[in-house]
Amino acid sequence: MDIKAQLRAQHIETPSWAYGNSGTRFKVFAQRGVPRDPYEKIADAAQVHLFTGVAPTVALHIPWDRVDDYADLARHARELGVGIGAINSNVFQDDDYMLGSVTNPDARVRRKAIQHLLDCVDIMDATGSDTLKLWFSDGINYPGQDDIRARQDRLAEALTEVYARLGPSQRFLLEYKFFEPAFYATDVPDWGTAYAHCLRLGPQAQVVVDTGHHAPGTNIEFIVAFLLREGKLGGFDFNSRFYADDDLMVGAADPFQLFRIMYEVIRGGGYTSGIAFMLDQCHNIEPKIPGQIRSVMNVQEATAKALLVDRAALANAQTAGDVLAANAVLMDAYNTDVRPLLADLRQEMSLAPDPMAAYAASGYPEKIVTERVGGAQAGWGA
Amino acid sequence: MDIKAQLRAQHIETPSWAYGNSGTRFKVFAQRGVPRDPYEKIADAAQVHLFTGVAPTVALHIPWDRVDDYADLARHARELGVGIGAINSNVFQDDDYMLGSVTNPDARVRRKAIQHLLDCVDIMDATGSDTLKLWFSDGINYPGQDDIRARQDRLAEALTEVYARLGPSQRFLLEYKFFEPAFYATDVPDWGTAYAHCLRLGPQAQVVVDTGHHAPGTNIEFIVAFLLREGKLGGFDFNSRFYADDDLMVGAADPFQLFRIMYEVIRGGGYTSGIAFMLDQCHNIEPKIPGQIRSVMNVQEATAKALLVDRAALANAQTAGDVLAANAVLMDAYNTDVRPLLADLRQEMSLAPDPMAAYAASGYPEKIVTERVGGAQAGWGA
Amino acid sequence: MDIKAQLRAQHIETPSWAYGNSGTRFKVFAQRGVPRDPYEKIADAAQVHLFTGVAPTVALHIPWDRVDDYADLARHARELGVGIGAINSNVFQDDDYMLGSVTNPDARVRRKAIQHLLDCVDIMDATGSDTLKLWFSDGINYPGQDDIRARQDRLAEALTEVYARLGPSQRFLLEYKFFEPAFYATDVPDWGTAYAHCLRLGPQAQVVVDTGHHAPGTNIEFIVAFLLREGKLGGFDFNSRFYADDDLMVGAADPFQLFRIMYEVIRGGGYTSGIAFMLDQCHNIEPKIPGQIRSVMNVQEATAKALLVDRAALANAQTAGDVLAANAVLMDAYNTDVRPLLADLRQEMSLAPDPMAAYAASGYPEKIVTERVGGAQAGWGA
Amino acid sequence: MDIKAQLRAQHIETPSWAYGNSGTRFKVFAQRGVPRDPYEKIADAAQVHLFTGVAPTVALHIPWDRVDDYADLARHARELGVGIGAINSNVFQDDDYMLGSVTNPDARVRRKAIQHLLDCVDIMDATGSDTLKLWFSDGINYPGQDDIRARQDRLAEALTEVYARLGPSQRFLLEYKFFEPAFYATDVPDWGTAYAHCLRLGPQAQVVVDTGHHAPGTNIEFIVAFLLREGKLGGFDFNSRFYADDDLMVGAADPFQLFRIMYEVIRGGGYTSGIAFMLDQCHNIEPKIPGQIRSVMNVQEATAKALLVDRAALANAQTAGDVLAANAVLMDAYNTDVRPLLADLRQEMSLAPDPMAAYAASGYPEKIVTERVGGAQAGWGA
Repeated sequence: MDIKAQLRAQHIETPSWAYGNSGTRFKVFAQRGVPRDPYEKIADAAQVHLFTGVAPTVALHIPWDRVDDYADLARHARELGVGIGAINSNVFQDDDYMLGSVTNPDARVRRKAIQHLLDCVDIMDATGSDTLKLWFSDGINYPGQDDIRARQDRLAEALTEVYARLGPSQRFLLEYKFFEPAFYATDVPDWGTAYAHCLRLGPQAQVVVDTGHHAPGTNIEFIVAFLLREGKLGGFDFNSRFYADDDLMVGAADPFQLFRIMYEVIRGGGYTSGIAFMLDQCHNIEPKIPGQIRSVMNVQEATAKALLVDRAALANAQTAGDVLAANAVLMDAYNTDVRPLLADLRQEMSLAPDPMAAYAASGYPEKIVTERVGGAQAGWGA
Repeated sequence: MDIKAQLRAQHIETPSWAYGNSGTRFKVFAQRGVPRDPYEKIADAAQVHLFTGVAPTVALHIPWDRVDDYADLARHARELGVGIGAINSNVFQDDDYMLGSVTNPDARVRRKAIQHLLDCVDIMDATGSDTLKLWFSDGINYPGQDDIRARQDRLAEALTEVYARLGPSQRFLLEYKFFEPAFYATDVPDWGTAYAHCLRLGPQAQVVVDTGHHAPGTNIEFIVAFLLREGKLGGFDFNSRFYADDDLMVGAADPFQLFRIMYEVIRGGGYTSGIAFMLDQCHNIEPKIPGQIRSVMNVQEATAKALLVDRAALANAQTAGDVLAANAVLMDAYNTDVRPLLADLRQEMSLAPDPMAAYAASGYPEKIVTERVGGAQAGWGA
Repeated sequence: MDIKAQLRAQHIETPSWAYGNSGTRFKVFAQRGVPRDPYEKIADAAQVHLFTGVAPTVALHIPWDRVDDYADLARHARELGVGIGAINSNVFQDDDYMLGSVTNPDARVRRKAIQHLLDCVDIMDATGSDTLKLWFSDGINYPGQDDIRARQDRLAEALTEVYARLGPSQRFLLEYKFFEPAFYATDVPDWGTAYAHCLRLGPQAQVVVDTGHHAPGTNIEFIVAFLLREGKLGGFDFNSRFYADDDLMVGAADPFQLFRIMYEVIRGGGYTSGIAFMLDQCHNIEPKIPGQIRSVMNVQEATAKALLVDRAALANAQTAGDVLAANAVLMDAYNTDVRPLLADLRQEMSLAPDPMAAYAASGYPEKIVTERVGGAQAGWGA
Repeated sequence: MDIKAQLRAQHIETPSWAYGNSGTRFKVFAQRGVPRDPYEKIADAAQVHLFTGVAPTVALHIPWDRVDDYADLARHARELGVGIGAINSNVFQDDDYMLGSVTNPDARVRRKAIQHLLDCVDIMDATGSDTLKLWFSDGINYPGQDDIRARQDRLAEALTEVYARLGPSQRFLLEYKFFEPAFYATDVPDWGTAYAHCLRLGPQAQVVVDTGHHAPGTNIEFIVAFLLREGKLGGFDFNSRFYADDDLMVGAADPFQLFRIMYEVIRGGGYTSGIAFMLDQCHNIEPKIPGQIRSVMNVQEATAKALLVDRAALANAQTAGDVLAANAVLMDAYNTDVRPLLADLRQEMSLAPDPMAAYAASGYPEKIVTERVGGAQAGWGA
């Protein structure tokens, strides 16, 4: 069946940092069995793929996932049945970056930050990753603290240099965020800013939508539709939120919104066109691997519902201006319980129908608690 | 003195519709003395200029200001010492526009809406106005109601046709709005959308920033700085808000924000480069002419403070990374009481130092109450 | 089956004003077939009950539903199979109320407003209604406009007088609203304010939760749980919103939120304890009667899902501190497609399984368009 | 002069934790010269008082300020010219509190948390502090995770026990917070919840308003006015925010809001009635002691402006329903530059007129950098 074939081909990327400890500024609650190094993180990511069948890659975060031999790390991943996904640069945790990285008023700091980004492209070369993710925490906390426009000039300069370093089959995704950790003005605060920079640079620069990075009330699916129309949607960082960048499991806060997003992706041709579906979440209080499995399932369920939309009926009602009928076509799909369909699909893929239960029964949770004793647990190191 | 010269040259445009009745969906409270036709509205606008000296033009709104002879209306304005400013198109009040105007699924309705926009350019020709303001209330209330992306296609088509109609010294300003009256997806919801359309069209298409049209918490001065850097800021619709598009008097809700916006305008070279400073407000419960005078004064005070910023000291502190010193330079200007400076300026301009008091004592308020009896008061006609 | 019995006993009240025209401050789009008087509104409300079986009462709004003989209106309702529900007072549309009704600085205006509220109790006596709904649009648009605290004193005085007038089997519900039409400070802006006043007055004063009247991000189900614990939840005004008080069909914007609200109602014992489940919506662009039917069905579906929650399993997971398991229990119920269950229920109640289709096929839509010609359509009269 | 006398008597409390390192979940940037223990924190707080003259007490945070001998710490403070202010309890950083402290489903954890609160009262006894501040980070991240209402029952039980332990001249202040670190439902999310619990307990329980703990758009001065009217406002945690709980310097984000808050405090009689004016901020990127000095000055300036409001003129305009005149009276005070007045006041108090410059020239900043070498810098220990 067509929908099943499309669901079988889905590719959701999990992030290495979701397997380590994370928290809020108030407290990071350590969990037992958490990985101590990138190899262990990848092992955990491989479990998510093992039970869901649709999470074949894992994103790295540099320097959190710094290793001596990236080719070896990639080999390790392949042995476990997964691949290396996007390389996420981190220019927010060095003391030098207190007042910004690539937009810092100090040229020395900017140079250091740009060099880190170029190093990340080296890691892409070494691991075979084709995607660089750029998130800048850069911004200012107080009016007047720095010149908003000069920071844009510096940003443009840095992006230009990094763009020039990309190989022909590589791209970067520029991420925007409404606020945090900057509390007055963020240098890439919205999709418009990211879009304008990417447009100037060329086709290898695209925008990535983190579903938690918007002002309250923002219609995210509109942005998705718009960026797809412009050929500038590069991917997603999925998570969910009730308030700010809460980084809860995707689909947990507003499953209807996730469905609407997936509908626009499919409607705009983004489902099969190289758009990266990545998770970016913090499992502060729930166990990490099950948290990722549940999240992958949530994206899968939303996708299944979006694929079920009767688009011909929808188009008819829309053309007729029949508001209630058009809305009803969409809601019919959303209100369908797709869990039986997905259970079937998994069995066709030789997977257990219930990934959560299968993982829980696999012995892996107990194994990592037992084996991962000593050493420093991975985390954000904030 | 330089600051005074800059303040003397300021040009703030008032909107004809501010002189008519307005309200909320719950109630429009009629006021005595309100104009009954565009001629009387222009007469009221002339009062605002008479007492402030910096409000020399008045914006029209079509069809609310429809007259048989626009050249005559322009002559009337000139006689009263003011000119015709931007022409504001209205494609939201005809019954045909219930499901949209230029983005309506029905081609007939789109054609009608586009024709209205073209007619507005005719009015520009007749009145000598060089600016067309485009605000589309278009959007949808329910998920699925219409196709988000198809509506963008229709919007692009309409804008292209209107752009082609512009004379060489004419421009249009595309307005965005977060929500209302559409309650699910608005077709031009944010600056990014307006920017992308204007960029495609060319230099005669620019973005207008209505200060009440953003998601909660949006940093408006960032948008101002960004659009100026891109050469795409065309003007402002000033007003203020605590919640949504409240349309209170500009500067009433957050005078510090207005100051920051004016600072970015000046810093980005926008003060002297053809950017339109327009008011767009609703005086639901306060008298209209005094409401406009106060608003003009609020913009003037924010401008004076922004001009007072010691930019050399600011740059030094910013370059040094001295957060508190840089913030203090900005706050020094903001905390200055500029009212004596502006009173001086007015006296140099042969105006009364206190425009509010001078207007109140002028006899005009009583005159319009007495004379404007009978006829239908101007309003939105919602 | 127990769940079906509970669903069969559900009582959702529709508002007379949902059948008239409504809109935004920008435009009210008139629809064909709209009622011209309270009798016709009640006839339309009776249709909603006819096809859903769970909407046996209709709320009135005074003065919009003013008639000479309320007993006759009640008799008319009974003949059509429905009853009169809550009496909604309106002290926001008289010119005298520009600066407030019961909190107006002018004692004369306050007296007039209080008298209107007392008159509403008379109408309760005449119609047999046991519930008075009090919503005050009172507030101020500008800092300093009036004294925030003095307005509370005036509010308390008015509520005291109205409370004293209530008969022993009557109550009033005090509604709060974040903002609109007041744009700086609203006199009853949040549940805490309404709660404090009701607590002081006694058991016949309770809080009503309008689901569209909160600040962005507010957790409404928390408020529901809290008020139920305090014995102070009197009822709901259901609708949905993406932005402000959008008054869309309940369940249209965030069906998961509606489910969570209904879960807390049931968990807190509110489902069977006299809490009024009322709709308060604006069908600005969709047909009114089908809009109400769909809304009733949305509440019904959310209720069915909430009743399906396995509360023993939930309690076990909660007690065990198993975050993912507890969340999964809730989501299991939410993800269930309850439409077959409700179709069954309707057939047991001798109703058509699909109320939307049955109404569409009934001939009533065509009938009202044909018959309701001439006269003034009902609306808000703003 | 009366205003000066009132300003001279002002008492603003600084928090010990403002002198240590703080940051976001992304990074804590360490600063040189930061205190290593509570004694050094108090020394820094004494500097703020030395230069401002209005910050005579410092709040403690337990366990961050745990010492063996609290009487000795109090003596140390007195020697430096300051006193111990409120004791802030911390039940959010022990691993046991991952799923809550006093509302945890596990009775053992609840007991531990309550015991910590009781221990804090012991510290009050030892230090002479009369105020206990209770902030609970308790809440849940996912719908269903725990029972919202049962958590209220547990909260009520804990508060009852702590209240009973208070001495006759002691009180506790219950703090509410919209969200963070809980991301779905917070157990004390709004003033209404805090108020209801305090009301039940009695006069020694009051609400504390943290100016950063509200939903976007919330009118904080309304809450201040309301709680004062009810006799339930206990104090403030001052800071400012553009987005969430940003914890910027008070007055930095919206100085007009701070002025309005101080106006309501004064108007409601709260200025001289035991209300605690405390700062609660994070100086993530600016130096800490100057950050506190600036903040104290910001509160002082807002207070001076609020005291300048011509209340007779305001009352007249309000009574007359003159919206613009009433607003103008308030704005006149706000637009006044009070810095000269405050410079005079300081000189009368034998202080330098510019506290920021005086502190910078005092040698203290260099001294702490030189002397505070080695040891572990104080911070949140998250």
